[in-house]
Amino acid sequence: MSSVYLSGVGMVRFGKHPVDIGFEQLAAGAAAAALKDAGASRSQIEALYVGHVFGGPVAGQRVAAQVGIDGLPVSNHENYCASGATALREAWMAIRAGLYDVVLVIGAEKMTDRVKGGVAPDPSDLDAVQGFVMTAGHAMSARRYMLDHGATREQIAMVAVKNHAHSQHNPFAHYQHAITLEQVLSARLVADPLGVLDCSPISDGAAAAVVCSARGLQRLGLPASQPQVRAIGLVSGTLRTGLYDLNEEDISRRAGRQAYEMAAIDPADIDFVEMHDCFTIAEIVRMEGLGLIPRGEGARWTADGRTSIGGQLPVNPSGGLLSRGHPVGATGMAQVCELYWQLTGQAGARQVEEARLALSYCKGGTVSGTDGASVTTVVVSR
Amino acid sequence: MSSVYLSGVGMVRFGKHPVDIGFEQLAAGAAAAALKDAGASRSQIEALYVGHVFGGPVAGQRVAAQVGIDGLPVSNHENYCASGATALREAWMAIRAGLYDVVLVIGAEKMTDRVKGGVAPDPSDLDAVQGFVMTAGHAMSARRYMLDHGATREQIAMVAVKNHAHSQHNPFAHYQHAITLEQVLSARLVADPLGVLDCSPISDGAAAAVVCSARGLQRLGLPASQPQVRAIGLVSGTLRTGLYDLNEEDISRRAGRQAYEMAAIDPADIDFVEMHDCFTIAEIVRMEGLGLIPRGEGARWTADGRTSIGGQLPVNPSGGLLSRGHPVGATGMAQVCELYWQLTGQAGARQVEEARLALSYCKGGTVSGTDGASVTTVVVSR
Repeated sequence: MSSVYLSGVGMVRFGKHPVDIGFEQLAAGAAAAALKDAGASRSQIEALYVGHVFGGPVAGQRVAAQVGIDGLPVSNHENYCASGATALREAWMAIRAGLYDVVLVIGAEKMTDRVKGGVAPDPSDLDAVQGFVMTAGHAMSARRYMLDHGATREQIAMVAVKNHAHSQHNPFAHYQHAITLEQVLSARLVADPLGVLDCSPISDGAAAAVVCSARGLQRLGLPASQPQVRAIGLVSGTLRTGLYDLNEEDISRRAGRQAYEMAAIDPADIDFVEMHDCFTIAEIVRMEGLGLIPRGEGARWTADGRTSIGGQLPVNPSGGLLSRGHPVGATGMAQVCELYWQLTGQAGARQVEEARLALSYCKGGTVSGTDGASVTTVVVSR
Repeated sequence: MSSVYLSGVGMVRFGKHPVDIGFEQLAAGAAAAALKDAGASRSQIEALYVGHVFGGPVAGQRVAAQVGIDGLPVSNHENYCASGATALREAWMAIRAGLYDVVLVIGAEKMTDRVKGGVAPDPSDLDAVQGFVMTAGHAMSARRYMLDHGATREQIAMVAVKNHAHSQHNPFAHYQHAITLEQVLSARLVADPLGVLDCSPISDGAAAAVVCSARGLQRLGLPASQPQVRAIGLVSGTLRTGLYDLNEEDISRRAGRQAYEMAAIDPADIDFVEMHDCFTIAEIVRMEGLGLIPRGEGARWTADGRTSIGGQLPVNPSGGLLSRGHPVGATGMAQVCELYWQLTGQAGARQVEEARLALSYCKGGTVSGTDGASVTTVVVSR
């Protein structure tokens, strides 16, 4: 079983890109940056893995032509908001299987010119069609969390304040300015108690990584000290089976356990987390679902600064989905870029000190989960 | 590196299914048949791989819920008409990587209630938007082939006659009746010289396989003599780069070579082929592209019966896309079902004698290939 390494990463800035910059151009921009970072030439790439949701049929093949690596095996991976991480997982598996030594993985999405006011629910998601959309679900999650754990609206809002504070120092973030607690609390209400600053934005963007075997590292002239992809968990499933607690996060618990076991790590050793904070409350309940913060304490941890850079367990040093932005298929790979930059000490003013082991988490699917959700958990160490 | 085996397969009949039988139900029907065939219980399945084009986001998760294997890792694979085979390839890789021992692979598509008169070209395919659609491209391919090789319209039409003759004996085929050469020649013209019987139909359907490691076979109580997936090639790429010969089939040549090398076989030892005959002429030029029939002789081979069951190299004993039908995401797995049935001597009146080594081939993408195509080549032996 080959070990799997990250040899370089790259992103295009998340945000609103012009209409004439398409999905393929965004993806190619991230790819070029990752190739440059890894010191890899196009001819050294053996296969391409692309994660996306809205790119249309054979999206990866169009990207390959744009990148200038036409003719390679291309795999397209759709797994809603976990698409980028799922593409990485298949690449990681192919390297483990000994099929390739140097591959390129890209997550990309062009959303701002096609998604107006949020992603429309899939017609097959009967709950969403009736109004139980993403925001409604997370609002219920927040209400229930406050009721169960005595948490306050302010504590939950602090997730957005923290993540915006972090992304001030991330040149690839959609938002690069700080916000105040008052701004979050007084923002336009979306679904009580969540306002617009509790929600991740609609963004365009792309992120990529060159992923290698040990032999691939040698081929690129890189040392074996490059960050290593230790495990990638994937759990799918409908979330609701009868009566249930919205904040139970059984799927997160299982995906976490899968990754910890596969990587043979103690989760207490994780130095920071890139978490799928599509909504403020989601960061809290998912960190608890992973067992990284005790149940019911996530809101207080946030308000106390324990999940800030410099705190006990920094969460989303990149700014997360809330502030780095959320081009859905790109998010998983943007998290991996952040893991790479942090673990190689290249994160500048947002650097997490002594970062050696990190986890990134994506969740795809609807909040009700009647059409099936997926959680990916990526463990990277140096 | 683990060897990879087929432990059972299943299909639902290809054809027009009622509007209230959805994608998920078709997929679940094929899955249930494959599980039964393999003697596998739902709880023995460790992961699900789903190939589809039109199933929408997280299609596989919806299928998992329908199959009753909710909670497993699910991967969705889109690669146009090669989607089913691409899903199989990722499953094969995961088993080779030692990640799983028993997985389920499904290809499925519900087309008849959404595709009217053919698949609309992707707006990004500028050639197709201008009229160079699939049928036009294959018509040009046929004209060029006739001109270059002195082949006749009648010889090309014989591909449809042969494949319909084969599928008379396939209970899962869309069409189960023979047709005459006169019927093909006098059928409504679609793109001169190709008539409607030279074109594969719009079908609904699903096909599935339980795929195992050696340990997985033991777990299911099956012998090591089960058919083995020896190689799965994948080549992607835009097809056209400047001046080119439509029938050159460079992408097929490369995908064939990839599979022969990976499987360490002499292509001359292949006993039969399941070929992506989306159009009559396509079967001919692709067999030649693979190097299995000498360049320019495919039409004559067909007319002489050399590619019929009982001939030198039977092609499409199942009836192929032309007559078994072509629910795009399902086709690659339907080919694998046929490989399995033939290699285990279960093909009844369409049995290819002494079948020990077989190849299936899918091609996805547009004929001009400006938006990128893919070819998969699956080698299975017993």
